[in-house]
Amino acid sequence: MVIDPKPVVTLLTDFGIQDSYVGQMKGIILGINPAVTLVDITHSIAAHDIRQGAFTIFTAWQAFPPGTIHLCVVDPGVGSDRRGLIIEKDRHFFVGPDNGLFSFLLEFSDGKRSSASLYSIGRQGTAARASSTTFHGRDIFAPTAARLSLGAAVSSFGPEVVDWVQLRIPLPKQLGESIKGEVIHVDGFGNLITNITGDTLRGFRNCGIRVGQSLHISGISETYSDVSARSPLAYWGSAGFLELALREGNLARAFDLAVGCEIILVREGGDGCG
Amino acid sequence: MVIDPKPVVTLLTDFGIQDSYVGQMKGIILGINPAVTLVDITHSIAAHDIRQGAFTIFTAWQAFPPGTIHLCVVDPGVGSDRRGLIIEKDRHFFVGPDNGLFSFLLEFSDGKRSSASLYSIGRQGTAARASSTTFHGRDIFAPTAARLSLGAAVSSFGPEVVDWVQLRIPLPKQLGESIKGEVIHVDGFGNLITNITGDTLRGFRNCGIRVGQSLHISGISETYSDVSARSPLAYWGSAGFLELALREGNLARAFDLAVGCEIILVREGGDGCG
Amino acid sequence: MVIDPKPVVTLLTDFGIQDSYVGQMKGIILGINPAVTLVDITHSIAAHDIRQGAFTIFTAWQAFPPGTIHLCVVDPGVGSDRRGLIIEKDRHFFVGPDNGLFSFLLEFSDGKRSSASLYSIGRQGTAARASSTTFHGRDIFAPTAARLSLGAAVSSFGPEVVDWVQLRIPLPKQLGESIKGEVIHVDGFGNLITNITGDTLRGFRNCGIRVGQSLHISGISETYSDVSARSPLAYWGSAGFLELALREGNLARAFDLAVGCEIILVREGGDGCG
Repeated sequence: MVIDPKPVVTLLTDFGIQDSYVGQMKGIILGINPAVTLVDITHSIAAHDIRQGAFTIFTAWQAFPPGTIHLCVVDPGVGSDRRGLIIEKDRHFFVGPDNGLFSFLLEFSDGKRSSASLYSIGRQGTAARASSTTFHGRDIFAPTAARLSLGAAVSSFGPEVVDWVQLRIPLPKQLGESIKGEVIHVDGFGNLITNITGDTLRGFRNCGIRVGQSLHISGISETYSDVSARSPLAYWGSAGFLELALREGNLARAFDLAVGCEIILVREGGDGCG
Repeated sequence: MVIDPKPVVTLLTDFGIQDSYVGQMKGIILGINPAVTLVDITHSIAAHDIRQGAFTIFTAWQAFPPGTIHLCVVDPGVGSDRRGLIIEKDRHFFVGPDNGLFSFLLEFSDGKRSSASLYSIGRQGTAARASSTTFHGRDIFAPTAARLSLGAAVSSFGPEVVDWVQLRIPLPKQLGESIKGEVIHVDGFGNLITNITGDTLRGFRNCGIRVGQSLHISGISETYSDVSARSPLAYWGSAGFLELALREGNLARAFDLAVGCEIILVREGGDGCG
Repeated sequence: MVIDPKPVVTLLTDFGIQDSYVGQMKGIILGINPAVTLVDITHSIAAHDIRQGAFTIFTAWQAFPPGTIHLCVVDPGVGSDRRGLIIEKDRHFFVGPDNGLFSFLLEFSDGKRSSASLYSIGRQGTAARASSTTFHGRDIFAPTAARLSLGAAVSSFGPEVVDWVQLRIPLPKQLGESIKGEVIHVDGFGNLITNITGDTLRGFRNCGIRVGQSLHISGISETYSDVSARSPLAYWGSAGFLELALREGNLARAFDLAVGCEIILVREGGDGCG
């Protein structure tokens, strides 16, 4: 395919922002292709938290133009024999370790299993300098992303593969008249992103939502200002999932809620909705 | 007006750096105009803190070249009927919610009320995709900024407006022989930025400064090295306001001072200067 | 020398990410040369921590292409008579205060004292606007970096100099059969970077490592996966120093270790290796 002369390369890591690790990756990329536009998604994924990285990639990529290359490194197994991957999907490219980091991306696409092509990264993916055993982000994945941005074929790095490491992604369950979901992400505002999609809730137009012992929400709002300040609400979030928030407040902190907390939805007036 | 072929778009939000929200806005902008240069001002404005956002925009914009577009999103009222604004001022453009976020910019310009033109953002400001009700930063403001960067006329997004939401900005008060001001910002070094400008202090060449019960500073220094290490000092800060600092230390932490703290200035030797 | 038409300017400061200080520097640079590619190394150097800044620059610069300009501002002495410096080394340029910030760069280059040229920055380095006394990052160093990126000669800013402020960099010491080193950096993962290089350990192929009372490591591993999860290991890090880590954990936190901690290496089986 034809590559944009000024392609976008996004970066997502758990490297933090205090060290030079991210800068080193960018230096390597710019040495190979000075024309790229570099965009940070985040470097504040919790150390080694593949699930959080996987969710964050999933929320970000569709905002970028076709041809974008997404360099994703949350890599606790660096230096082991875990594989490196290039994924091509909907004219976007993803580069990173095969450890589950692309699970949401590959499994959670508009409800249907997505049509993606996967290639493993072999030795030709490495930079001219000898590869370190602890920093493949710089020595293998960054050069791979940079070469893709110059138009290298995805198949030139290694053979196509058909399997990949898949995280267990919790799916909502129907239990009689209620649906049991869970919190899959807490954002910086303290909003809770759940695993409940519009498909899940078909036939649940009006519903009550219960989280833990003390939080009850009645109905799904359009937006924050539908409720009064400091009140909790549920709404369809910008990533397509049901979200829970405290208007102008921090719901996770106020109710001590975190990733993994159970969410129960019931038809309004049905059993179990306090 | 003629737009730079490679215009600068700055971003200031309260989105934090752990989620993909900022990345999503950048992806949308690059999809509309791949030639922009994106510059983060900050994404660490405290959640929903319009005043802090307003101050920070004010300190930043004049460092950028004419033609720069400043995308500013601190937006607790997203989804309500609060208006979106484009402001043109001194050949810079500002895009964001009409909630007070541009208060310092519009009120605090070299002592004179500034000559700015304001336009509301109508439905044509939205992206091709359906707008979310909770993420106008991505779905309305980012596309507006991107189209401005391509040369769209400010008047093409909506009608000119003459009023706007204005925060109460605390102004210093003269009280007999003394001036009462307050801390309007605490920076990352723990330096206190006050609302006292050179105009306020005309005729106060030598003055004593008192903050709270325990902090007394005599006179205004040129720079940090005028006092010994760990000593407090006052000086004219890089944003044009009187600032207080602890040389090689953190004044806010050492004296437990925060935004809103009262500052009393007296002519040296006058009443009230301990 | 010929300058790249789209040169890279990296930025490293202790300004933090909550204020607009870094944005202001970038605005000034883009006003002088809109074609630069700006890359943040970090802005999270601890306030006034010259040593941490010096180490971080040292780990970053070689990943960038020749012609890169590194703008480095950790500057507790701003406004005093401390000198500004431009350093040219291996076709890279460094701009910042002469306070020890370039110590690792200048002293620690492949074991040999490096061939760098140094120039002081005189008044012609200042921007058109009057220079502040507290923000030379914006008013002196950023314009200097931008003009270098346009091809200005290093000698055009001020005279060549042959001395510079040098931090004491702790070097490892041989003590009979053992080597005494120390921790010179703790990264965001809690990994400990020591001052021990491959040269130091010549003849120490198999060695035991002791840190404090409770941490003993036997031998140097290739990579994290050579040990089981939550086990400590030593390995040659991506910056060329011996590093200590806890696989999939945070060693600094687990063992309460910090910069300055002593590391003892002994030949395996020799005295002092518990």
